[in-house]
Amino acid sequence: MRISILTLFPEMFDGFMNTSIIKKARLKELVQMEAVDIREFTDDRHRRVDEYPFGGGQGMIMKCQPVLDCVDSLRTENSRVLLMGPTGRRFDQAMAHELVQEQHLILLCGHYEGLDARIREFVDDEVSIGDYVLTGGEIAAMVISDAVTRLVDGVITEQSHLDESFENGLLEYPQYTRPADYKGHRVPEVLLSGHHEKIRQFRLKESLRLTLRVRPDLLKNRVWTLEEQRLMEEVLQEENVLPDEKTVE
Amino acid sequence: MRISILTLFPEMFDGFMNTSIIKKARLKELVQMEAVDIREFTDDRHRRVDEYPFGGGQGMIMKCQPVLDCVDSLRTENSRVLLMGPTGRRFDQAMAHELVQEQHLILLCGHYEGLDARIREFVDDEVSIGDYVLTGGEIAAMVISDAVTRLVDGVITEQSHLDESFENGLLEYPQYTRPADYKGHRVPEVLLSGHHEKIRQFRLKESLRLTLRVRPDLLKNRVWTLEEQRLMEEVLQEENVLPDEKTVE
Repeated sequence: MRISILTLFPEMFDGFMNTSIIKKARLKELVQMEAVDIREFTDDRHRRVDEYPFGGGQGMIMKCQPVLDCVDSLRTENSRVLLMGPTGRRFDQAMAHELVQEQHLILLCGHYEGLDARIREFVDDEVSIGDYVLTGGEIAAMVISDAVTRLVDGVITEQSHLDESFENGLLEYPQYTRPADYKGHRVPEVLLSGHHEKIRQFRLKESLRLTLRVRPDLLKNRVWTLEEQRLMEEVLQEENVLPDEKTVE
Repeated sequence: MRISILTLFPEMFDGFMNTSIIKKARLKELVQMEAVDIREFTDDRHRRVDEYPFGGGQGMIMKCQPVLDCVDSLRTENSRVLLMGPTGRRFDQAMAHELVQEQHLILLCGHYEGLDARIREFVDDEVSIGDYVLTGGEIAAMVISDAVTRLVDGVITEQSHLDESFENGLLEYPQYTRPADYKGHRVPEVLLSGHHEKIRQFRLKESLRLTLRVRPDLLKNRVWTLEEQRLMEEVLQEENVLPDEKTVE
């Protein structure tokens, strides 16, 4: 997997690329990652990369030439070019699984007020990480690079993936570590019991409870095991929720 | 506005804090921002900040003591403590407007496999930036810091806000800059006309078209002006969409 991030601010990625999982994945050569400076590709003698918008308006618009020449310098038939932008397809964990199948991702970061709309005609997809306004695409490129890198074989263990929120359609169960009593806040007794089967059931039940409380939308269309159905009925009783208030069929 | 980011990886924020809008807002002293190293607060003589989970399982869990002592060292009665986490309330532009009213945001970044669930009992809110799995809360803290900083008075111009996607309930209209013809891809003629009223209507209509195409959910419950209704009817005809296929009442 190779990830090329095209940006006017490559220095924003220094810390990101040299920390934690991304650093390990790069050192193990499981992922190649580079931040490429779009400004290096401008043919303007003043090194400008943006100009005023046609038709008037606030701010500066990134020009086609430096952006698309930068893309062309890196693009091969195995590249997928994604523009980071608010009008794009919503990025989620399913899309991360889709993108990890690619050989080469080119993540194009717009900045400032926007970029020339014609650039969209030269990319494969536009991707948005959420309904909020950010200064540029750089943080979105970090989100996608991080989420995808974690899914590359060998970067983290298989079991870690299965336990994570969203991966099994539920939020992750609560975790606890020492001390067993922190200022009067105690760890649930079952976790201290050493009884593996009870611990497994406790975790599944708390996963269901947490998902019901904060993300009931994730339970729609779920295919339930018999055990999950039984534990969910217990949760609904304990939470004083009648089954028909939440969609848990 | 003061933003304190609590993390095991403060170096991840060097580039972020010294680039673009955030850098300008800090230099103008409109926003104070700091990355605080949680590890400095551990009372473990080996400087450990995490331990194995009670009940077994993969990975390491961040301990209550260093995290909460770090929070306590910064928290005042004017602080709002937000934990970055997948089980949190979904961050969006409306929440950014809510958070910019605060005097002091403390953004707490979990990392690795998770953090002791009791930490949630000591924070004001848990916040999620989207349905994807990230290595830690650091990128989420950047998203929130960036989106909120942009809304602080004086950081960017009022008109820039009004033009942005989501702020008026629509996606932003397409922007273009020179050249008028890029490899045969031409700028819409109206933008070259100098006719301000036609340009305004073109932009509103294209904003409606783009929103209908990629985010029709944003049009639900919209309060429409007469002009918007008329332009939307034109868009629906041009796009060959019957009015009852999309919710545009």
